[in-house]
Amino acid sequence: MKSVAIGIDIGGTNTAIGVVDREGNVLVKDTILTPGHGNITMFIDDMVGSIRQLINAVEKLNPAIEVLGIGIGAPNANYYTGTIEQAPNLSFKGVVPMVKLIEERLPEMKAIAITNDANAAAIGEMIYGGAKGMRDFVVYTLGTGVGSGVVVNGDLVYGHDGFAGECGHMTIVPGGRLCGCGGNGHLEAYCSAPGMKRTALELLAKYNAHNSPLASFSFNDLSSKFIFESAEKGDKVAQEVFELTGQWLGQGLAITAHHTSPEAIFLFGGPTAAGAYIFRPAIDSMEKHLLPSFKNKIKVLPSQLKPGDAAIVGASALVYKELEKKL
Amino acid sequence: MKSVAIGIDIGGTNTAIGVVDREGNVLVKDTILTPGHGNITMFIDDMVGSIRQLINAVEKLNPAIEVLGIGIGAPNANYYTGTIEQAPNLSFKGVVPMVKLIEERLPEMKAIAITNDANAAAIGEMIYGGAKGMRDFVVYTLGTGVGSGVVVNGDLVYGHDGFAGECGHMTIVPGGRLCGCGGNGHLEAYCSAPGMKRTALELLAKYNAHNSPLASFSFNDLSSKFIFESAEKGDKVAQEVFELTGQWLGQGLAITAHHTSPEAIFLFGGPTAAGAYIFRPAIDSMEKHLLPSFKNKIKVLPSQLKPGDAAIVGASALVYKELEKKL
Repeated sequence: MKSVAIGIDIGGTNTAIGVVDREGNVLVKDTILTPGHGNITMFIDDMVGSIRQLINAVEKLNPAIEVLGIGIGAPNANYYTGTIEQAPNLSFKGVVPMVKLIEERLPEMKAIAITNDANAAAIGEMIYGGAKGMRDFVVYTLGTGVGSGVVVNGDLVYGHDGFAGECGHMTIVPGGRLCGCGGNGHLEAYCSAPGMKRTALELLAKYNAHNSPLASFSFNDLSSKFIFESAEKGDKVAQEVFELTGQWLGQGLAITAHHTSPEAIFLFGGPTAAGAYIFRPAIDSMEKHLLPSFKNKIKVLPSQLKPGDAAIVGASALVYKELEKKL
Repeated sequence: MKSVAIGIDIGGTNTAIGVVDREGNVLVKDTILTPGHGNITMFIDDMVGSIRQLINAVEKLNPAIEVLGIGIGAPNANYYTGTIEQAPNLSFKGVVPMVKLIEERLPEMKAIAITNDANAAAIGEMIYGGAKGMRDFVVYTLGTGVGSGVVVNGDLVYGHDGFAGECGHMTIVPGGRLCGCGGNGHLEAYCSAPGMKRTALELLAKYNAHNSPLASFSFNDLSSKFIFESAEKGDKVAQEVFELTGQWLGQGLAITAHHTSPEAIFLFGGPTAAGAYIFRPAIDSMEKHLLPSFKNKIKVLPSQLKPGDAAIVGASALVYKELEKKL
C-alpha cells in the first residue's frame, strides 16, 4: 500500500485540492471556486465532490493507495477548534466548524485538521521540505502579507487560543507605515510584496528618480517581480528596495530568533525568488541585530516546497502530524 | 515523607542556596561567596558543604523529609549541556560542566538541572506561582537587565542550542540606545532599572527640569526606586519615566504575544513594585500594538513569587520539571 494525504488550500477566490504522496509530490489536483455567497453547505458539497473524484482518479493510477486524511489551510483557521473564525477575505461569517462538516461527510478519514496557511507551510517544510529532522525552526511566508509558523520541540506553536505565530505583525518601525490590520510599523507593511512597492515609491520620491524603470508604473501596476527584474538590470532604486526590505526583515528575524533560538528560519513566497537580493541583506541585518551568543548559528534558508503546489502540499502535511499525535 | 527541592542562585558576587518545600516556601537558606578567582573546585567544595549543612538543618526540623534534587539558576547557563558558558559576570572562564561537577559529589540526588535565572523564574511561576495550570505563558524579569522565560505547551522553550527566551534583546527602537550587549535600541536598554534612569536623564534634559527631585541626583546615584517614590509624590518627570517605560515594554509584550499567543505574561523584578505606574501604560501599549484577534485576551500579571527568595525558589522548581520528564 502507498499512503497519500489530501491537502486543501482555501483562498479568497479559489480553493485548491490535491492528493499528495509521502514525498510531497502532488499526484492529482483540482480547483473549485470559494463561493462569494457564504453558503457553507454548497461549498462543502463541492469540496467533497471534488475530493471523491480525486480519490477515484488516484486509485485508477494505483489501486494500492490508501488515503490517510485531509489537511486544510485557510485564513483565520483555528487548529484547536477545527474552525474558521471571522476571516476577512472569505464570505463565511461567524465561526465555521470546517473540520466537523467534512468529518460528517467523509467519516472514513483517519485524520482531518485545519490551520492557517503559514502554519501549514511550516508543517509542510517539516514533513516534506528542508526542515526534515529539525526540532526548532521557523517559516516566514512573504506574499500579499507576511505570515509565519513557529516550530518548537518538533511541534507547531499554536499558543493559548490557536492563533500564535503572527510574526508579520511585530512592530519594526515605531509609529511607521499603516498595516492592513490597522496597526503601525508592522513587519508586513515593509516586507510583504505590497510593502516592497511602498518602499519603491518612497525611494522614487526621495531621489526624484525619473530615470528609474520603476518610475514608469503606477502604484497599482508596479509589482515586486518587476522590482526584482529592474534590480537585476542594475537599477539603483530597485536594488535599494531589496536592501531596505532585507534590513527590515533581518530585524524581525533576529527578534524571532531571540524568542525561540531556532536551528533555521525558512523564507517562503514570491519575493524570495529574488535570491541573494533579499537573502544577503536579510542575513546581514539579522546578524547585526543578534546577541553575540546567537551570532553565526542560525541558518536562513529558502523553502524547499515547490512554489506552485506549496499551499496544497503544506496543508496535506498536517495529516502526518495528526497521525503522529494519535500514536 | 515531605518532599523538598534545593534551589541555587549563582550571582556575580554571592551564591544563594535554599531548601524549598512543595508550596514554594524557603525552609532554610545560606549564602556563600561566588569566588572571583575562577577556581571551580573550591567553589563546588563550598557549595556542597553548604548543601550538606542545609540538609542536616532541615532534617532536624522534620526527620521525614526527602530531598528530591537540585535546581540551579545562573547567567549563561545551558540547560541541554548542564554547563555555564562564558558568563561575562562570573570568574569561571570557558565552559564549566556545573551539573556534572555537582552530580559527582551528590550522586544521591534524583535530578540536577541548570538554566538561566529568567528561565528559572518562569518554571518557578509554573510550579509555585501564578502560572499554576497554565500551558502557555511568558515571564519577563525586569532588573539590571531584562530577561525572559517562554513556556509553550507546558514546557520551557530552550530552542536549538539552549539559549532561547532573550526577549530583552529585541530591537524596540531601531538605531536607539546602546545596549549592554553591544546592540542598539534593545528593550533592555529602555525597560531595565538602568534603562529607567537613562529615560529620567533624557527627560530632565528635554524639559530643563531643575525643580524635579530627580535633578538633585547624579546618574550614578539615581535609582529606579527613587523615580517611583517621586512619581508617587506627583513629580511629572518621574511619572513620564513610567509612562515611557510602559510604552516600550508594551511594544515588546505585543511582539512576544504575536509569537506564542500566551494566556498571560508575568512581570517580575524591582520596577514592577511600582504597580499601576508600570502595568497600566504597559498594558495600554501592548493592546495598542496587538492584532485585533489578540486584543483583550492576554493577561499581564505581577509575578506571584516572593521578591527576596524568588531566585532560589525559581531554581528549585527545575527539580519538579525534571522529575516530571523522567516519568
